[in-house]
Amino acid sequence: MNSAVIDFINTNRDRYLEELTQYIAIPSVSALPEHAGDMRRCAEWTAEQLKTIGLQNVRVIETPGHPVVYGDWLNAPGAPTVLFYGHYDVQPVDPLDQWISPPFEATVRDNELFARGATDDKGQLFIHVKALEAHLSQTGTLPINARVIFEGEEEIGSPNLDQFIREHKDELSCDVVVISDSAMFDKGVPSICYGLRGLSYFQIDLRGTSTDLHSGSFGGAVANPAFVLAQVLSQMKDRGGHVKIPGFYDDVRELTEPEREEFKRLPFNQKQYRKGLGAPKLHGETGYSTLERTWARPTFEVNGVLGGFTGEGAKTVIPATAMAKVSMRLVPNQDPDKIAALFEEYVKKVTPKSVELKVTRMHGGKPWMTEIDNAFVKAAVRAIEQGFNRSPVYTREGGSIPVVATFQSELNAPTVLFGVGLPDENAHAPNEKLDLDNFYNGIIASAYLYNEIGAIRK
Amino acid sequence: MNSAVIDFINTNRDRYLEELTQYIAIPSVSALPEHAGDMRRCAEWTAEQLKTIGLQNVRVIETPGHPVVYGDWLNAPGAPTVLFYGHYDVQPVDPLDQWISPPFEATVRDNELFARGATDDKGQLFIHVKALEAHLSQTGTLPINARVIFEGEEEIGSPNLDQFIREHKDELSCDVVVISDSAMFDKGVPSICYGLRGLSYFQIDLRGTSTDLHSGSFGGAVANPAFVLAQVLSQMKDRGGHVKIPGFYDDVRELTEPEREEFKRLPFNQKQYRKGLGAPKLHGETGYSTLERTWARPTFEVNGVLGGFTGEGAKTVIPATAMAKVSMRLVPNQDPDKIAALFEEYVKKVTPKSVELKVTRMHGGKPWMTEIDNAFVKAAVRAIEQGFNRSPVYTREGGSIPVVATFQSELNAPTVLFGVGLPDENAHAPNEKLDLDNFYNGIIASAYLYNEIGAIRK
Repeated sequence: MNSAVIDFINTNRDRYLEELTQYIAIPSVSALPEHAGDMRRCAEWTAEQLKTIGLQNVRVIETPGHPVVYGDWLNAPGAPTVLFYGHYDVQPVDPLDQWISPPFEATVRDNELFARGATDDKGQLFIHVKALEAHLSQTGTLPINARVIFEGEEEIGSPNLDQFIREHKDELSCDVVVISDSAMFDKGVPSICYGLRGLSYFQIDLRGTSTDLHSGSFGGAVANPAFVLAQVLSQMKDRGGHVKIPGFYDDVRELTEPEREEFKRLPFNQKQYRKGLGAPKLHGETGYSTLERTWARPTFEVNGVLGGFTGEGAKTVIPATAMAKVSMRLVPNQDPDKIAALFEEYVKKVTPKSVELKVTRMHGGKPWMTEIDNAFVKAAVRAIEQGFNRSPVYTREGGSIPVVATFQSELNAPTVLFGVGLPDENAHAPNEKLDLDNFYNGIIASAYLYNEIGAIRK
Repeated sequence: MNSAVIDFINTNRDRYLEELTQYIAIPSVSALPEHAGDMRRCAEWTAEQLKTIGLQNVRVIETPGHPVVYGDWLNAPGAPTVLFYGHYDVQPVDPLDQWISPPFEATVRDNELFARGATDDKGQLFIHVKALEAHLSQTGTLPINARVIFEGEEEIGSPNLDQFIREHKDELSCDVVVISDSAMFDKGVPSICYGLRGLSYFQIDLRGTSTDLHSGSFGGAVANPAFVLAQVLSQMKDRGGHVKIPGFYDDVRELTEPEREEFKRLPFNQKQYRKGLGAPKLHGETGYSTLERTWARPTFEVNGVLGGFTGEGAKTVIPATAMAKVSMRLVPNQDPDKIAALFEEYVKKVTPKSVELKVTRMHGGKPWMTEIDNAFVKAAVRAIEQGFNRSPVYTREGGSIPVVATFQSELNAPTVLFGVGLPDENAHAPNEKLDLDNFYNGIIASAYLYNEIGAIRK
């Protein structure tokens, strides 16, 4: 590594903060139509940055929704090509009155930068923009070939991204994808996330009768869909938190002993975790720890339920209908489509004929896992050691990042999740923030990462 | 019976209809504050009627809500005293656009009178007003002592009636209560209802965590209150529709063989009933018929359920809370307070410690039953035979009329349910109506009823 690159990063911290503050000041809320102009402005600001730091072929590419910003630098023959993915859109800011400082005026308090988008994802994508800039400005070159795509619809579920990737396969061809849009395990505990859960989400609708009925006149004569719904849902998991859908666990990749040992070593305080959630007691699948349950075991959850009279007071009604939103988090190697079929079959089986059943598939996403002895993962480990002066721990994550599966299937590229956020940074809540140590160390680690990846010969 | 009384009734039909039309034209909707003036006007119109027909001590008596109209005629020494109860308030008329004719303009179509209040309860209380008038105008006397109370809050749950009865015990003392505010079994099948179900109504609130959680990050680590709610509710009844609360059936008065035989003889078309409700299949407690299930067996119903995300689309949330409204219909000799205690104990037992539980008692009402060989019931049977030219059948009713239990406990008086409505008369729906044959025959039957009761010596 050319030491000028690191020196440059260390002497430009104030400018980085100023630029990020400008970036954050554009209220790029993708979910709200009144911010359409801001979305456009933010895409253009992003493109301007990519040009300024020396990327080539920079374009704002239209989609049916908000545009994607693209740039590349492909002048390192023989070196791997890295695709950097991030998003310039942010979550809405409601409830506004809970913000200590205005959400779009980045404000530093106690070495944390408070603003909407600080950690999710403007601050995190910016570490790569600035690391690329440091290399290009100090050496005139990069140790890798780089492609950048920053999208504007991540916070609304990336409705146009898969299509975009399929349509731009050649332009996006790469050896590895790097994403900084996640959290490390804890402050001072940098981590490599090597697994994500998938998802299979459904709506169940039951109908008992054509209209709501008086529970006095008709109570006892017909099936009550709200009660039947309870019967159906209660049969999805046993008391030990084990999902009862036949075949559900068939393709589950069991945790290995080394993985379980690694998880056990993590500084995880169960009591503090429980208290932080305000739960009277933790509860999950028998035989697994909390981290194992959330990272590496599939689950069944009821996301919502509605039926009958739910206002103040009492109304003696037998509801005509009842509805539940339910979802399963999936782990490698479960397949969302296969699970969906098993689920639908089981729901049909356990629902009595006294009600009409409708099951609607809402959406699904594949689980994902990378091998931790993968060369790119090892490169990331060494980069983190250099940026954070500490070896990263290996973690998994309970949520889904659907695009990771798309990159795998469409581009045949593995992903390195190079997240420098923290779990308590309020990504979707008021007072979102970014730890500034992690921000600066992240830029340094990224700069090292490119050297580490560049040293991998194809 | 003095034949002049019956002749008078038969020659005054048109006038009865005109007067009832006037009565109905006052939109006495007790639930809506904007009708407060109409409520007052309707109470005064009612009082004026009672004076006109010759009742004495007629008064509009204030309550904390809408007033009660009282009148009496107590000049038949040695004869029983009958307390007539009814209500001059009506249900709201929404949705207005579904009415074929304006709700407060009584309109005759095919010998049915369409209007809000036609059957519930202005039309039905009016049969007694007109029967009393017929006796007093044609004979100058009554075969019974009569007290009348018509309240103005039945459609909002009679919040002030129990207190009113307790405070006016002496003025309301009587030997029997007669209420015409229910339906006969079917057109041409006059009936005596000798049993009502009671009620015990609760809200169950579960809390799992202090806020909603992301089901990716936390799914599997904590109890999901919407799922736990399903588990709890599903344990209330078995697959055979039998309530599983320990001790629930201890005080249930089992149906007698003669009762079951009587129910079997009723012209009840199971298929038509199912089709009318739009149910794919009828479902209830194993070993009982539909009429037995709704009239004489206790039930457990989920009246409403709410938790988590219930909008359009998918949101991957673990709800912080979930809520259910549940109620049990009770039969003689179940006691609502005892059942409430059993229910609460059982809910506590089956709810896991991983969630916080709160159970709120909403309201309760005692079941009621009269002996069918009671002298007053027999009098009613003979009166119906004379008014409708047909013997009444014996029925029960699945709903509750809480005031019946109050009359029993406060006044120590049995009740005769002398309903001349029909099950399809849309009591709480658009196009409420009253069958005019039943209206006129009801007046005649009522006139006979007073003679029949008057013949009972105390």
